[in-house]
Amino acid sequence: METEIKIRGYHTDLYQHVNNARYLEFLEEARWQILETYTDLESFMKKGFLFFVVNINISYKSQARVNDLIRIRSGVKKIGNKSAVVRQKVHNLTTGQVCVDADITFVVSDVKGKALNIEGEVLAALKRIPVFEE
Amino acid sequence: METEIKIRGYHTDLYQHVNNARYLEFLEEARWQILETYTDLESFMKKGFLFFVVNINISYKSQARVNDLIRIRSGVKKIGNKSAVVRQKVHNLTTGQVCVDADITFVVSDVKGKALNIEGEVLAALKRIPVFEE
Amino acid sequence: METEIKIRGYHTDLYQHVNNARYLEFLEEARWQILETYTDLESFMKKGFLFFVVNINISYKSQARVNDLIRIRSGVKKIGNKSAVVRQKVHNLTTGQVCVDADITFVVSDVKGKALNIEGEVLAALKRIPVFEE
Amino acid sequence: METEIKIRGYHTDLYQHVNNARYLEFLEEARWQILETYTDLESFMKKGFLFFVVNINISYKSQARVNDLIRIRSGVKKIGNKSAVVRQKVHNLTTGQVCVDADITFVVSDVKGKALNIEGEVLAALKRIPVFEE
Repeated sequence: METEIKIRGYHTDLYQHVNNARYLEFLEEARWQILETYTDLESFMKKGFLFFVVNINISYKSQARVNDLIRIRSGVKKIGNKSAVVRQKVHNLTTGQVCVDADITFVVSDVKGKALNIEGEVLAALKRIPVFEE
Repeated sequence: METEIKIRGYHTDLYQHVNNARYLEFLEEARWQILETYTDLESFMKKGFLFFVVNINISYKSQARVNDLIRIRSGVKKIGNKSAVVRQKVHNLTTGQVCVDADITFVVSDVKGKALNIEGEVLAALKRIPVFEE
Repeated sequence: METEIKIRGYHTDLYQHVNNARYLEFLEEARWQILETYTDLESFMKKGFLFFVVNINISYKSQARVNDLIRIRSGVKKIGNKSAVVRQKVHNLTTGQVCVDADITFVVSDVKGKALNIEGEVLAALKRIPVFEE
Repeated sequence: METEIKIRGYHTDLYQHVNNARYLEFLEEARWQILETYTDLESFMKKGFLFFVVNINISYKSQARVNDLIRIRSGVKKIGNKSAVVRQKVHNLTTGQVCVDADITFVVSDVKGKALNIEGEVLAALKRIPVFEE
């Protein structure tokens, strides 16, 4: 599953490269695209399933600058009983280098914020998302 | 009513100045501070009053850069039957120049999104906010 | 010239609709796409031409919510001697309503920030961008 | 070293809590405040020292919502030869819970992007920043 983004002036900061916070929006964009592609996202949302990020471990390896084209690859790294991990890697296609890699750990909650076991239809949906291939 | 913000690296963009979109967040920050100072904001929110911006007319007159200190002055410009206008002016205290001025037109809606007449306790609250002095 | 954006959770705010500041990023995204399509953007940037927004007059007419698809149409409204105006209109394809329309006034500066007359290759480039059709 | 931020509507997302990306801006804000308090920040910037974040490991432990007041505590966790780690912890003063904790690893580069050894005046400056106390 791949998402491409062209870097614009408003994505960059004082250092004229993409800011650390902006990458989290790029990664979130790619995760929405996964959910929309492999799950019945709107049905999940109507049922009140909430996806809460509980940890992000992100490494910034090289820069992306205005007019660079980046590609985000995303996939499942691990599915546990209470949480799951999505792995995401950003390549800068213009420079040929890896920009960012990140592991995103999340839980699934009900509408009251109670963390659910990952089982049943949620587990089935997560299993449809391809595993991340390094 | 004045709000001061120190400009940081993440506020700036490719041109190494504050981006046009970021100023709208700065102005929104200042408006929250007004509402919190002159109205019973949490009570309004609990009653389901929503403040919807319907027009922003903003002029960018000079730049703000990292480490500059800006001051936002805000006040009421006009209260109509259906909408009201807040005027906001941003001075760059570091350069001594006006950065931005803006007129923000908003309506007040109920929780279903229906625009309300500006009367009763909403009108009383808006009247407590000082008038903008050029 | 059209840009489509799918609304995600991170685009929305307390009111669960796209925030007023975020629309300015959407509009800036669409303007980069215009410049890239109709001008030799990288060459302009290398020559040190800077595009500074000096005024935005934006009306928020209806809301966009998560999973809505919006389309931004952009075109030239007016080219003056010192400034030009781009008009942009956002349709919410999911609700069938106009979300936002905006007039963006900008100047072109040299690398030292001096506003240039709109003439020569800058004028030629702006004339290649289609006129906005209501 | 403490930074307080009042949560506003524009800080929150679809879930009506502060979005994961926004916290990185809050943490960056607090780091600018540290640098400005304990180092001669403008002098560093003029000399061309750049602070590049290379890793963020952030845990989201509880939520922050509109009108909540959060406090960010920041301090040095470790200073190595090539990189250093700042630890940051966000308390939600309204709920009494920890929202977020994060370790931020950064390097210092010269103006050409070459990572520098942490020594001399950079080391001296980092040593003036208080150590993080859990």
